Amino acid sequence: MSDRRKFVLDEAKMPTAWYNVQADLPEPLAPPLGPDGNPIGPEMLAPLFPMDLIMQEVSQERYIDIPGAVIDVLRSYRPSPVIRAEQLERDLGLPAGVKIYYKYEGVSPAGSHKPNTAIAQAYYNKQAGIKKLTTETGAGQWGSALSIAGALYGLEVEVFMVKVSYDQKPYRRFLMETYGASVHASPTNLTDAGRHILERDPESPGSLGIAISEAVEAAVKDENAHYALGSVLNHVCLHQTIIGEEAILQMEMAGDEPDVVVACVGGGSNFAGIAFPYFKRRLDGKSSTRLLAVEPKACPTLTAGEYRYDLGDEAGMTPQMKMYTLGHEFVPAGIHAGGLRYHGDSPLVSALVASGDIEATAVNQVECFQAAVQFARAEGILPAPESSHAIRAAIDEALAAKEAGEDKTVLFCLSGHGHFDLSAYEAYNSGNLEDFDYAATPNLCADDV
Amino acid sequence: MSDRRKFVLDEAKMPTAWYNVQADLPEPLAPPLGPDGNPIGPEMLAPLFPMDLIMQEVSQERYIDIPGAVIDVLRSYRPSPVIRAEQLERDLGLPAGVKIYYKYEGVSPAGSHKPNTAIAQAYYNKQAGIKKLTTETGAGQWGSALSIAGALYGLEVEVFMVKVSYDQKPYRRFLMETYGASVHASPTNLTDAGRHILERDPESPGSLGIAISEAVEAAVKDENAHYALGSVLNHVCLHQTIIGEEAILQMEMAGDEPDVVVACVGGGSNFAGIAFPYFKRRLDGKSSTRLLAVEPKACPTLTAGEYRYDLGDEAGMTPQMKMYTLGHEFVPAGIHAGGLRYHGDSPLVSALVASGDIEATAVNQVECFQAAVQFARAEGILPAPESSHAIRAAIDEALAAKEAGEDKTVLFCLSGHGHFDLSAYEAYNSGNLEDFDYAATPNLCADDV
Repeated sequence: MSDRRKFVLDEAKMPTAWYNVQADLPEPLAPPLGPDGNPIGPEMLAPLFPMDLIMQEVSQERYIDIPGAVIDVLRSYRPSPVIRAEQLERDLGLPAGVKIYYKYEGVSPAGSHKPNTAIAQAYYNKQAGIKKLTTETGAGQWGSALSIAGALYGLEVEVFMVKVSYDQKPYRRFLMETYGASVHASPTNLTDAGRHILERDPESPGSLGIAISEAVEAAVKDENAHYALGSVLNHVCLHQTIIGEEAILQMEMAGDEPDVVVACVGGGSNFAGIAFPYFKRRLDGKSSTRLLAVEPKACPTLTAGEYRYDLGDEAGMTPQMKMYTLGHEFVPAGIHAGGLRYHGDSPLVSALVASGDIEATAVNQVECFQAAVQFARAEGILPAPESSHAIRAAIDEALAAKEAGEDKTVLFCLSGHGHFDLSAYEAYNSGNLEDFDYAATPNLCADDV
Repeated sequence: MSDRRKFVLDEAKMPTAWYNVQADLPEPLAPPLGPDGNPIGPEMLAPLFPMDLIMQEVSQERYIDIPGAVIDVLRSYRPSPVIRAEQLERDLGLPAGVKIYYKYEGVSPAGSHKPNTAIAQAYYNKQAGIKKLTTETGAGQWGSALSIAGALYGLEVEVFMVKVSYDQKPYRRFLMETYGASVHASPTNLTDAGRHILERDPESPGSLGIAISEAVEAAVKDENAHYALGSVLNHVCLHQTIIGEEAILQMEMAGDEPDVVVACVGGGSNFAGIAFPYFKRRLDGKSSTRLLAVEPKACPTLTAGEYRYDLGDEAGMTPQMKMYTLGHEFVPAGIHAGGLRYHGDSPLVSALVASGDIEATAVNQVECFQAAVQFARAEGILPAPESSHAIRAAIDEALAAKEAGEDKTVLFCLSGHGHFDLSAYEAYNSGNLEDFDYAATPNLCADDV
């Protein structure tokens, strides 16, 4: 026990290596497959990624040093705090033995965990002599994180933003432009993929699949450019493990060991970030922490999907990866947690769900916003809609322990703040939010990620 | 010298007392005057404020203990970091002897320094048995800080929001409502003041003066309600001194003493917060730090105003205070730094400007946004337009030292982030931002605070 509320790690104790869960998987990850159905080698990824990141993608080393120049940038906002949710605990009427802590990633300049990997990716690309990074974005969370990282390292950033979001959600675009990124409404006439779409449908609202195609094509065609992805891939999950590495040290400061670690899952990177280091800790016999992945019922990849090879994108530009998937043509309903609207999931997270090392649960949108508002009024911080899934499950875990008369320490990842999501809160506040069944009619807002 | 970048104070070292500069003024503050021209006593403020805050308003004690229950809430986001602007220094080509640090108040749940006093005010009102707080807001920064504080302490919050902002800037309103506040478009038909306006002009866009009248009336007429103000008053400046108290300890960690402390000034509270403790430090002979207040050229209260008694609001609901003022009927142009559009200034800040202890300078809007974008691209954080004034002046101080071949350590207050101000950045990015002369025609957007 401690009488502290916020556990801030000394900068000098910030982890200096990422944890690579590939070293500790029950069995090696199934390899990605190319268009011909054969495993693809690192060299096939070279037009898109620098060799350092490709090697991280396939590395079996347990710890990979974080370059000093990356730490220099990360420490402008890291270590992020672990906070005891004292007021929330009181509001829930929890007994003394039931505690809730959260690791708050909204302190980054983008307001989410995304810069943890954007900064690393920008660094390795800069080192490789790359001048420009291309990427796709829907509502703009990833695009803004990469734009910030690009600005910090002096890299040009070109973002293909789904047209319907470009038109309807200008604030994230203004943010990216302020950091110096060029942002295009996709489909554009800058790429073959975009022109092809526009010829068929000049009024196309775009889609994330189209935007990926454009970003990849733009990178492949420019020898000074590479492509950057914000989740799903192994090296992205690797970069996020600093979240959990820090949290372990901070929970030691708190004198508590989490019985369960909770995070939301879309592509899987913030979940991997906080959960993988605790997976290692459990392997080492230092804890028996459960790992709980929370996804939306509107897109229940881990709880209702199949574990099989599938494409990473709708258009088929990416390799096939073995993962939980709802099928690459599945179009999730237009929930406000746009970052969780992905048909597949990180192959690493998927493998550990398949092996039974990670649990998964699915929750509805309205109950998530109810939890988010309760959290905001208790703790002051307005959560991102994605993070509200973790809050819902964390509260439910705590209430179940209270009900059962058991002690329990819950740690969840508050992956970002909701300052860019106020129209979603307005919809909830005015009673205009609805739940979506997984089998519901696909929604037009398919690219809100 | 230190090889650290971010200086995070241990929670255990967080200051436990506010510094009251009234104890160290060259001469006692001139008293506020009532409608009859006579000094008003504490009892006349009792319908609006709890006695603890009224006593703080007039206290001559040098240090006032922060209640433990306030510290409990503050420590969910405090101590706020001091960060060395390493990349900005490199981008400016500064020699090793010229350094820039910033104290970052955007880590609060409202994204600005405002909760530092909102939390304290909510606490004292709660202690006094008050059930509801009323206030006015323009664009919503203060209203959202008070809404958060109200939620944390279980107080009802009623916000009179200038109608034109209520209609045009819904996001801050959604934020306040999410924290449980009731927000009215002012003028309302809930008060005599509002009805009086609506009878004359049913389409009135409202004004901050009208909103103050409504909030004060609503508080006076409800024995369970009080009124809360976000700047200008002595107790508000007092609560903000935790900023400077922390900064002194953090600069000691950094091994540097600031030669100049810089902050923007509207009503004066963030400036007072960082500057007053350094004023004390200079009095004690521990430093020779200059204190530089930065205001917009569109509203140059300290640099072009008169030091005299004036009303705090346009409508004459408030006492007269001795302060620098442009006249209570002055309507500043519609610059995006809405929080700096105030005709007067804190009487405490004014007294120390008059005595020569504080310097003041005025800067233009466009050069502030230029500095803000340069800062964002170097340091990652998008500044609030208000804070950009401090950045402009801090950069100018550093460049002047470089030019002169002198060593200089600059510390400025980054009072908030700009995530709610992206339309202002869009205006700058697209070249649609203009400067306003002080003498320019009053602008229609008069209530953007």
